[in-house]
Amino acid sequence: MQLLFLGTGAGMPSKQRNTSALALKLLEERGAVWLFDCGEATQHQILHTTLKPRKIEKIFITHLHGDHIYGLPGLLGSRSFQGGDEPVEIYGPPGIKEFVESVLRISRTHLNYTIRIIEDLEGNIFEDESMKVTTAKLDHVIPSYGFRIEQKPLPPRLLIDQAKEKGVPKGPLLAKLKSGEDVTLDDGSIIKSVDVTEPGQKGFIVTILGDTRFCQAAIELGRNADVLVHEGTFDATTEKLAGEYGHSTIKEAAETAKQADAATLLVNHMSSRFLPEDEKQLVKEMRNVHEQSFIAHDFDEFEWKIHERRLKKL
Amino acid sequence: MQLLFLGTGAGMPSKQRNTSALALKLLEERGAVWLFDCGEATQHQILHTTLKPRKIEKIFITHLHGDHIYGLPGLLGSRSFQGGDEPVEIYGPPGIKEFVESVLRISRTHLNYTIRIIEDLEGNIFEDESMKVTTAKLDHVIPSYGFRIEQKPLPPRLLIDQAKEKGVPKGPLLAKLKSGEDVTLDDGSIIKSVDVTEPGQKGFIVTILGDTRFCQAAIELGRNADVLVHEGTFDATTEKLAGEYGHSTIKEAAETAKQADAATLLVNHMSSRFLPEDEKQLVKEMRNVHEQSFIAHDFDEFEWKIHERRLKKL
Ligand SMILES: [Zn+2]
Ligand SMILES: [Zn+2]
Repeated sequence: MQLLFLGTGAGMPSKQRNTSALALKLLEERGAVWLFDCGEATQHQILHTTLKPRKIEKIFITHLHGDHIYGLPGLLGSRSFQGGDEPVEIYGPPGIKEFVESVLRISRTHLNYTIRIIEDLEGNIFEDESMKVTTAKLDHVIPSYGFRIEQKPLPPRLLIDQAKEKGVPKGPLLAKLKSGEDVTLDDGSIIKSVDVTEPGQKGFIVTILGDTRFCQAAIELGRNADVLVHEGTFDATTEKLAGEYGHSTIKEAAETAKQADAATLLVNHMSSRFLPEDEKQLVKEMRNVHEQSFIAHDFDEFEWKIHERRLKKL
Repeated sequence: MQLLFLGTGAGMPSKQRNTSALALKLLEERGAVWLFDCGEATQHQILHTTLKPRKIEKIFITHLHGDHIYGLPGLLGSRSFQGGDEPVEIYGPPGIKEFVESVLRISRTHLNYTIRIIEDLEGNIFEDESMKVTTAKLDHVIPSYGFRIEQKPLPPRLLIDQAKEKGVPKGPLLAKLKSGEDVTLDDGSIIKSVDVTEPGQKGFIVTILGDTRFCQAAIELGRNADVLVHEGTFDATTEKLAGEYGHSTIKEAAETAKQADAATLLVNHMSSRFLPEDEKQLVKEMRNVHEQSFIAHDFDEFEWKIHERRLKKL
């Protein structure tokens, strides 16, 4: 799993930061990419990466502000033009369906794949054998959501040398042992699964939030997450504006990570009022509250190190 | 007057060419910029120029395909965010009003200026003391229009030294002479306007076309134009595709310029199938038909040299 930031700015594009988009790369896990928000020119940003639009399986929209959705019709159209033919699911607040459908209709855009749009964002919105996604409403000037993506525990690992040593032959018995079943060999001896397997590792938890004020829902959604992606539109000197416009300061983002006991905090949705030279001070403020914190930039990529159970900047 | 190409690609953005947008800079003429088409990320392209979004007075949309309109909501929003408060007029085919209004409504985008949307694109769509714009429907897979922008003759120029020599005093008499009126001086002598003025120069004619097959309407709209901007999505080897998809070859663009007797041809809307190294050959094909022809690239700018009456690449 990797997290690739495609747009880390707030409100409007600047030369340094595009409007919001974040790719959760699950290529090893499920051969797919999940996209979170899709500001204008997200497809342009993708041109500068190795991402393939046809690999995008799901798109999650946190809220309907333009800087989070204006790139969606273009991305969907280009995905089709480039040969994408697998269905796409789009999860977003009520209104996202009308947005996508009316823009595609008016611009006579025909897609060579089906899209399914899910506007009911309460609770558990997706679950299969390997992943589970739950949502909660945050506190912004319009309905804005966060997504908690939980990977299910990985399957147990068979200790093949130990099984061999105990006389287990190649074939179906090994599969049974791996799946947790005990087996009896031809000579009558019983082999216990626990003796020849290592328990499956815990999966990761990634929480990705939309625009929000500091709020309890954000803390709950980020509870014990391995990664929390949180907006930080303002800083301490502009705290009052943050409240007025429904945003957070970078320090509030760190406070949320701390209270949630999230391992790594990644801050995005940065105001263009911050200059690159301000960043050192902002990082310091943030790390005073929550040590393992980073400010994300466009094209920054972070990788989940499964054995170390930690996120590493690439 | 300058023409600044902001996007010269077809269908989808590439690293070399963004989707369609062209700025007609009328800063000396009327302190304003007119924009023709607004593909996704036009506002991003503008970030790399000296254009000020608040200077955009009119936006002309040739047709409703996504590569010509997806950047419009973002540009309108950012124009407001950056302090733009002067009204904007948007001219486009039926459907453009629903597009703009529904996208702004769904994304809760409030503009600090009024927009007026004109969907009736037949004939003379705008005229004031200095400019006149007429349109005609071209031949594409959906309704697509071209715009002919005619600058009216410039006011006569007063030959101040000659008027002085003839004894005309400073003041209102000079204004009368400039406006074409003959005047009588205090001593009874009559001064003729033609003797102390130089006739105003002819204005320029710029024709900007939307996507189209080779067609008579394009030739009529480009008749005697100083500049014709014409799409060239395909080349001779892909001529059949051009017809199928409602586009032109570069050679057909040159043929249109020739038959219209247009002075300078600028070709945009280039397919990403063309590589930079193909360009020499394409230019040769085109210039065999119409000598004064250029292939436009993103950020190419051309200036109207009023005294030489010709367009010059900057
Ligand atoms: Zn935002
Ligand atoms: Zn086009």
